[in-house]
Amino acid sequence: MKFEREQLIRFSHCDPAGIVFFPQYFVLFNGLVEDWFDDALALGYARVVVGQRIGLPTVALNCEFLRPSHMGERVQLGLAVHRLGRSSITLDLVCHHDGQERVRMRQVLVTTALDEGHATPIPDSIRAAIERFGIAGGSDAAQRLRGERA
Amino acid sequence: MKFEREQLIRFSHCDPAGIVFFPQYFVLFNGLVEDWFDDALALGYARVVVGQRIGLPTVALNCEFLRPSHMGERVQLGLAVHRLGRSSITLDLVCHHDGQERVRMRQVLVTTALDEGHATPIPDSIRAAIERFGIAGGSDAAQRLRGERA
Amino acid sequence: MKFEREQLIRFSHCDPAGIVFFPQYFVLFNGLVEDWFDDALALGYARVVVGQRIGLPTVALNCEFLRPSHMGERVQLGLAVHRLGRSSITLDLVCHHDGQERVRMRQVLVTTALDEGHATPIPDSIRAAIERFGIAGGSDAAQRLRGERA
Amino acid sequence: MKFEREQLIRFSHCDPAGIVFFPQYFVLFNGLVEDWFDDALALGYARVVVGQRIGLPTVALNCEFLRPSHMGERVQLGLAVHRLGRSSITLDLVCHHDGQERVRMRQVLVTTALDEGHATPIPDSIRAAIERFGIAGGSDAAQRLRGERA
Repeated sequence: MKFEREQLIRFSHCDPAGIVFFPQYFVLFNGLVEDWFDDALALGYARVVVGQRIGLPTVALNCEFLRPSHMGERVQLGLAVHRLGRSSITLDLVCHHDGQERVRMRQVLVTTALDEGHATPIPDSIRAAIERFGIAGGSDAAQRLRGERA
Repeated sequence: MKFEREQLIRFSHCDPAGIVFFPQYFVLFNGLVEDWFDDALALGYARVVVGQRIGLPTVALNCEFLRPSHMGERVQLGLAVHRLGRSSITLDLVCHHDGQERVRMRQVLVTTALDEGHATPIPDSIRAAIERFGIAGGSDAAQRLRGERA
Repeated sequence: MKFEREQLIRFSHCDPAGIVFFPQYFVLFNGLVEDWFDDALALGYARVVVGQRIGLPTVALNCEFLRPSHMGERVQLGLAVHRLGRSSITLDLVCHHDGQERVRMRQVLVTTALDEGHATPIPDSIRAAIERFGIAGGSDAAQRLRGERA
Repeated sequence: MKFEREQLIRFSHCDPAGIVFFPQYFVLFNGLVEDWFDDALALGYARVVVGQRIGLPTVALNCEFLRPSHMGERVQLGLAVHRLGRSSITLDLVCHHDGQERVRMRQVLVTTALDEGHATPIPDSIRAAIERFGIAGGSDAAQRLRGERA
């Protein structure tokens, strides 16, 4: 139920203080979501965006930066699915290094029809792949019973 | 009690969907904080970072992306101070266009001694300038009476 | 025959050495080209790209980085047109500060039909506006007499 | 005599035309130089920059963008050493895909003492590692005989 990748902290990620400039974490987590689509969900991120014309813009995020990351470190990026709504995917993302948490984020993505520019229900192929991967916050059905929606 | 700047949405801010790639908002808001230090607080952002060796890393943020921004739009970026802690500055940031809210964020910065790499109390010159600018969430003294800290 | 803009060097432009990370210069010069289209050519960069579906990808560049730029400096960015081909625009770009040259670049852009993805002759409206602005390397007619093309 | 890496073209590398925004190539090539230091030269890029306080700023580059790269493609990035001067390293960099060249660049880096901010002779450990790797343009001794310097 967790997708993990190692990520080298590069010169280009770092600011004049020698640590990761925080907007770069969002670029790195965006890359993790792409790899998750490619390697864990086997959907092909580019096929979804370019082929199916489905975008995944972020509509909300909540983030804590607990400790800085430095150039040359090989950090671990992790992703779990917190919940699946009608058109929203809520992810829990984490960056850690040697057992130490660096960043913790909850991010809500919404499947969007790129040509119309508005939210669209999660396509069945994506929903099925994510359900196979596993949803930490419980199944969609269970969530609906509890009255959660997006 | 509010600092505002117009910002042109440029080609380099936009993603393959033709809208602002969300990490770019954090870069733009970072620029707004610099302009606030330069123009409203008259502290000189570079003088604080390079001269006083005080950094302002982000420790938490909470953000909603309500509507997309497009290349060529001139959006308004706004900043207000929500509260001032011992070493934390909590900002309310907003991006709007034609009365329509695009992004709303609360961000917590912490004054940090760059050479030691840990939080340090907000220097008096910065605290005084921010108090003169105005704190939406009430004065520091009032906050302390209510038991808030950072 | 020269378009100039002041540019503040921001925290986000700088690397762990505290100086501009060189790819950021290309982002800044790209912004200068946008401002030139908006303010000097009065064409509207976004109108050209989004409205006319004409892109301006870079096909060649030649660049020297003479001295570093530091956070907090207000540098001058300058642009002149070296020559105008059938579908290419060759620009001379410069970044300087206090009479000191920092970066010098020659860049070739090609007008491209975004929907077909290949070069297209410079639209008449763009050619006329650039000719009114002025071409340092001489008129297009003179260049053609000398046998130059693109 | 050549160092190669596969690189996935990600969403964050692409512009509103759906192709790599050219400054991103320089970020990718910068990453290739880091990997070359880490994996081929076994010097540790972060150790050189952070430990030895030796920076590698770019002083010149010459670049052709032959064909666009698209999101989802796995391109090949390649690096060869063209020549080694007293304090300069001239690299030939290429991006290709399926036998098709996309980008071709010659880039000159200069070893720099970060604390003094000026060029310094290439440290012996770096020179020896690069000579072991191989220099396409001939050995430093041969170059010196021919009177080349940097």
